[in-house]
Amino acid sequence: MYILKPFSFSKRFPETEVIGSAFAGNQDQVIPLSFGFPAPESLPADKMTAATEAAMLSQGRQALAYSGGTGPKHIINWIKERSRLREIEATENEIIVTSGSSQAIDLITRTLTDPGDEIWVEAPTFFGALKTFRLAETTLFSFPIDENGLRVDLVEQELNERVKNNLPLPKLMYVIPNYQNPGGVNLSVDRRKRLAELAYKYNFFIIEDDAYVELSFDETYLPAIYSFGPERVVYLSTFSKIIAPGLRLGWAIGLSAIIEKMRILKIDGLTSVYVQEVTKNLLEQMDMDEQISYLNTIYLSRKNAMVSAIKQYFGDEVSFHEPNGGFFLWLTFPPQIDTSEFLDTAMLAGVSYIAGKHFFLQNEGYNHMRLSFTFCKEDIIHEAIKRLANTYYEYVNSKQMIEEVN
Amino acid sequence: MYILKPFSFSKRFPETEVIGSAFAGNQDQVIPLSFGFPAPESLPADKMTAATEAAMLSQGRQALAYSGGTGPKHIINWIKERSRLREIEATENEIIVTSGSSQAIDLITRTLTDPGDEIWVEAPTFFGALKTFRLAETTLFSFPIDENGLRVDLVEQELNERVKNNLPLPKLMYVIPNYQNPGGVNLSVDRRKRLAELAYKYNFFIIEDDAYVELSFDETYLPAIYSFGPERVVYLSTFSKIIAPGLRLGWAIGLSAIIEKMRILKIDGLTSVYVQEVTKNLLEQMDMDEQISYLNTIYLSRKNAMVSAIKQYFGDEVSFHEPNGGFFLWLTFPPQIDTSEFLDTAMLAGVSYIAGKHFFLQNEGYNHMRLSFTFCKEDIIHEAIKRLANTYYEYVNSKQMIEEVN
Repeated sequence: MYILKPFSFSKRFPETEVIGSAFAGNQDQVIPLSFGFPAPESLPADKMTAATEAAMLSQGRQALAYSGGTGPKHIINWIKERSRLREIEATENEIIVTSGSSQAIDLITRTLTDPGDEIWVEAPTFFGALKTFRLAETTLFSFPIDENGLRVDLVEQELNERVKNNLPLPKLMYVIPNYQNPGGVNLSVDRRKRLAELAYKYNFFIIEDDAYVELSFDETYLPAIYSFGPERVVYLSTFSKIIAPGLRLGWAIGLSAIIEKMRILKIDGLTSVYVQEVTKNLLEQMDMDEQISYLNTIYLSRKNAMVSAIKQYFGDEVSFHEPNGGFFLWLTFPPQIDTSEFLDTAMLAGVSYIAGKHFFLQNEGYNHMRLSFTFCKEDIIHEAIKRLANTYYEYVNSKQMIEEVN
Repeated sequence: MYILKPFSFSKRFPETEVIGSAFAGNQDQVIPLSFGFPAPESLPADKMTAATEAAMLSQGRQALAYSGGTGPKHIINWIKERSRLREIEATENEIIVTSGSSQAIDLITRTLTDPGDEIWVEAPTFFGALKTFRLAETTLFSFPIDENGLRVDLVEQELNERVKNNLPLPKLMYVIPNYQNPGGVNLSVDRRKRLAELAYKYNFFIIEDDAYVELSFDETYLPAIYSFGPERVVYLSTFSKIIAPGLRLGWAIGLSAIIEKMRILKIDGLTSVYVQEVTKNLLEQMDMDEQISYLNTIYLSRKNAMVSAIKQYFGDEVSFHEPNGGFFLWLTFPPQIDTSEFLDTAMLAGVSYIAGKHFFLQNEGYNHMRLSFTFCKEDIIHEAIKRLANTYYEYVNSKQMIEEVN
């Protein structure tokens, strides 16, 4: 046998930091405010057996073959109908069902960019999308958000500058228009319109990631960016937040020429047709409006519990935009704070969160923190915020002591 | 609104020909000998409801959350145990569960190659893998097979030449060692050993695609290439051929450093944990040895039916290696024949197949044809081969007439 030589991985792997903590203790004792988990009691475990039985009775073995039975077509129809509520009109060949919307982000990225191409993003934004864009070896550039979402005026200014200086324009702009992850804000209608116009004028595509649209606590819905520019927007959404993430079912809507290329790139075949058959029956057996209204009732109550606990334990030490929907609260601490510095001690104290820096491109956002309010019940949230505040003030005190010593 | 400008797709999309026919008639009236579909009656539709019920009772809502309950761990354990039969010893962090083994081919390719890197393949080989390698913008190079599989001697000769002339070596070699798709041959033990040695010596990785290993009609099993070189082989297999393709469950086994990178690149998250929970219970409720023995009994009988019909209707006009397992029969016609030229008429006559050229890198293999013997019952297979022979002799006669006229 020959001696092993060193080998190298593809150059596509970025130097990514693992998101989380070095905490090696019992994870079961940690109250998870970190990841975007739905409320466990909302997952329709009691309906899965009946939905499976109905799928097998109506479709038989077709449901287990490569292309399934009638389920995948029904899922597409459901997506078409539901999209009308967002003022989106789409045909069957403008829709692709994906393994969660994460896969849709990956497919649209690799369909429309080559390494080195620019993708513009919000700052802060979803770290999973940043990871995908980096693995596609694209160049990233970010723009701040405010209470009305992405600062489209700054995007326009930069586009003008690029043209003036003969510099490359972006291929894609990634936006989360509703209950932005992590910011919790909604993009205003004026900005949606203007962004769509810019996409036509400067010939880039918008990835409109609309994972949270259904989770509106006051039942107000803005028209999708897609409705203002269907030829330059690819719209994404998912069943993860309204039925169950473990199914891995999401979708993308866009020009048929683009969806066709995404199907080619979707080398894993059709998204589990078995899951689609079962989900079709689940959709028939569940009252989706009731399910969504139920989700919003519990999520609003949990958000309120988190907001009042933060006011009680942090007072004026943190500021935040109070979101009217979605999963997350985005906290801003005083500028000298680095939230990644007390994550390990917070985990030891039994509470987790995600440090702000992970939502930015580089060396930014240290004084922010994302908390998810959907997974835990109100009293647990209260306890978690109390523990978090204790950890935080210990950190602040020790930081001050160190500074005084130095 | 601005006028639409033209936009371009990523350069990664190759000029791929669609595999199939322009046939626009009723597909239901076509006997499908083209794609590798399992026998419909073997799909365990009757067991899915009970498996779902058991999964929901034992794991509850965990089965629908992002990481699932205990199911994914049980699936890994099943893979570990089953792999021992192939003389493979692997630990948990050396195994990744994927969305069919198609996704595993994609992940390992993009983990170990950059655009321009060389991947070496068998000729003929699985067209899905060729598509994946092309989308990864790699450079392909092929070697013939014979009755004992890949001509490893020619691989060795080429490796020597490359070194002598200071030319690039391959990063990957893609091999289907058992019941090769489409050739139906098995790679001999000596060649497996030698190929593993070459991978160590010349520092490339072997993708060992073992989708068909369980489908051995005479129950003989050769040790995996992996067993001769675990540090330079990534082993792939799937539940698609032994349980159901519609589940989309496959796996890869390799060095933990490689599997770790594949997990990063697997941007769609964990493979449907819900499907894993249900499959875990299915594996407990099914006798897998009995299931596999049942599959092999019907597939052997169908292969025999196809072989005898071919002998009856084609006589000495075609030659083939008679496989002892797997899904496919690979026919060789006289050299002047191009099997893609009568596919449309065959479809009109109610039978489908895949033309030989799709299994090669370029302008080769025109006089071959792949037939799948697993999907249809014996009498249907007999009828299909009869129709195919009629179509073929019509084609041959019209071809000769044209030649005489010219």
